Amino acid sequence: MNFTTYLRNGAPRLAVVDNDQLIDLNDAQPQVPDDLRRALQAGVDLNEAARQALAHGARQPLAAAALAPLVPEPGKIVCLGLNYYDHAKEGGREKPDYPWFFFRGASSLIAHGEAGVVPSVSSKFDYEAELAVVIGRRVPRHTQEADALQYVFGYSCFNDMSVRDYQKRTPQWTIGKNFDGTGGFGPVLVSADALPPGAVGLKIQGRLNGEVMQDANTSDMIFSVAETIALLADVLTLEPGDVIVMGTPAGVGQARTPPVWMKAGDRYEVEIERVGVLSNPIVNEAR
Amino acid sequence: MNFTTYLRNGAPRLAVVDNDQLIDLNDAQPQVPDDLRRALQAGVDLNEAARQALAHGARQPLAAAALAPLVPEPGKIVCLGLNYYDHAKEGGREKPDYPWFFFRGASSLIAHGEAGVVPSVSSKFDYEAELAVVIGRRVPRHTQEADALQYVFGYSCFNDMSVRDYQKRTPQWTIGKNFDGTGGFGPVLVSADALPPGAVGLKIQGRLNGEVMQDANTSDMIFSVAETIALLADVLTLEPGDVIVMGTPAGVGQARTPPVWMKAGDRYEVEIERVGVLSNPIVNEAR
Repeated sequence: MNFTTYLRNGAPRLAVVDNDQLIDLNDAQPQVPDDLRRALQAGVDLNEAARQALAHGARQPLAAAALAPLVPEPGKIVCLGLNYYDHAKEGGREKPDYPWFFFRGASSLIAHGEAGVVPSVSSKFDYEAELAVVIGRRVPRHTQEADALQYVFGYSCFNDMSVRDYQKRTPQWTIGKNFDGTGGFGPVLVSADALPPGAVGLKIQGRLNGEVMQDANTSDMIFSVAETIALLADVLTLEPGDVIVMGTPAGVGQARTPPVWMKAGDRYEVEIERVGVLSNPIVNEAR
Repeated sequence: MNFTTYLRNGAPRLAVVDNDQLIDLNDAQPQVPDDLRRALQAGVDLNEAARQALAHGARQPLAAAALAPLVPEPGKIVCLGLNYYDHAKEGGREKPDYPWFFFRGASSLIAHGEAGVVPSVSSKFDYEAELAVVIGRRVPRHTQEADALQYVFGYSCFNDMSVRDYQKRTPQWTIGKNFDGTGGFGPVLVSADALPPGAVGLKIQGRLNGEVMQDANTSDMIFSVAETIALLADVLTLEPGDVIVMGTPAGVGQARTPPVWMKAGDRYEVEIERVGVLSNPIVNEAR
């Protein structure tokens, strides 16, 4: 099943996607909370609710809808750095033996179609095509890798846009990963049952104004989705609606000669096979 | 005015504190949301509501209440590393020219009186006494230092308990700062009007089983509250209920010879002059 979050009167609402149409899930199935995170927290069988909604719900054209970030307000957004060996290499780094975790805040998120923002304080604005994982059920602490994937609800696309000079002002990358208008997330959440376990073996591509800048496969990830969940479960509780952003392959702008920075008028697309295409235009911060 | 968040039937509720008594604010003033973050988001004049509640509300003994983390689910928890020069020095670091920002997630928070948890995967469990800032109103982007303090609702105590080997597994500290049961937060939120601007000039002390381990003054902070808010406003939107944790002074366990690690049966207290005493017993993770 495919889900999205769209805006109705400015408020985000969970919807089922069927090709070029969407069905408001709470309208069609009033027992389902209208927010993806709350629906997962409530333990709703979203795939079954979606099947009912597809059969009976009112449809509207997807293209006419303004979307919201897929999970508008996740409890946690855990990101991995350097999770593709070629990307670690292009940055002059060794293959890591533990993920370089950092967190994003919800205030950095933008929807599919919404503009990524070149901040007024920097021009070093880079793209990062990534696979996003949405947790469906609370992951018990110390869950093992072999048991981890049952807690994943589904997968989507993410553009982990990065302000490189702020990212490197100190050894802590967090601040360069948390500018407003930099976390592209969507458009569609594909439920895990519709994809290979762990979303392995899927082509992942990033395109700047149509030109392929990143071109890899999710099987190239150093830490798989299952291993990442198991490593996190040694530390913390992953909760319904939490998001894991799995790192980016080689080809980022800062590693090119000369460097390529995104600027107003550009557009970056993240395409993951069988998951979708996330597209964001780029604008300058309004001041 | 003094506020806290306590548990009623397992659910966190905002309360006003008057010496050794608390008054449920939503019971006394039903227009006030029962959650601190939502009350701030709603733009309620909390100090005025608290005055009304103090005059007319039903009281119960504070000592009998189980508390929750002061803001149970902040949108963001932004933490500063190395914000006291003596602490930077004891870790072999230079005085930073920009804060070392990292984020905590809400799943790491514990209340005053709740146990800090030595994880099963590490014994390198350290304390960090810190001043916490609770944002009251949305901070406009690019707010200047001179205008920053008007957006602060109040101040509290924080123990930024750290799992040092995980903190240093990679250059990104985030994972070592996000174990479940490691972010002590409370007990009382003191509104900004009751303290010096920016909470400067307050003694801050950390005590392990009664022995003074950290002893400093909030005036020793390298980046003040106002400067920190201004630096963050260049990057992101601080929202009502967001929390900034201002870094710890010298005296942490890892910098001692031999190192001092917290273990089951210990208790750490964070005391900030005119703000309060945060006390947490330490237990081993149950497995």
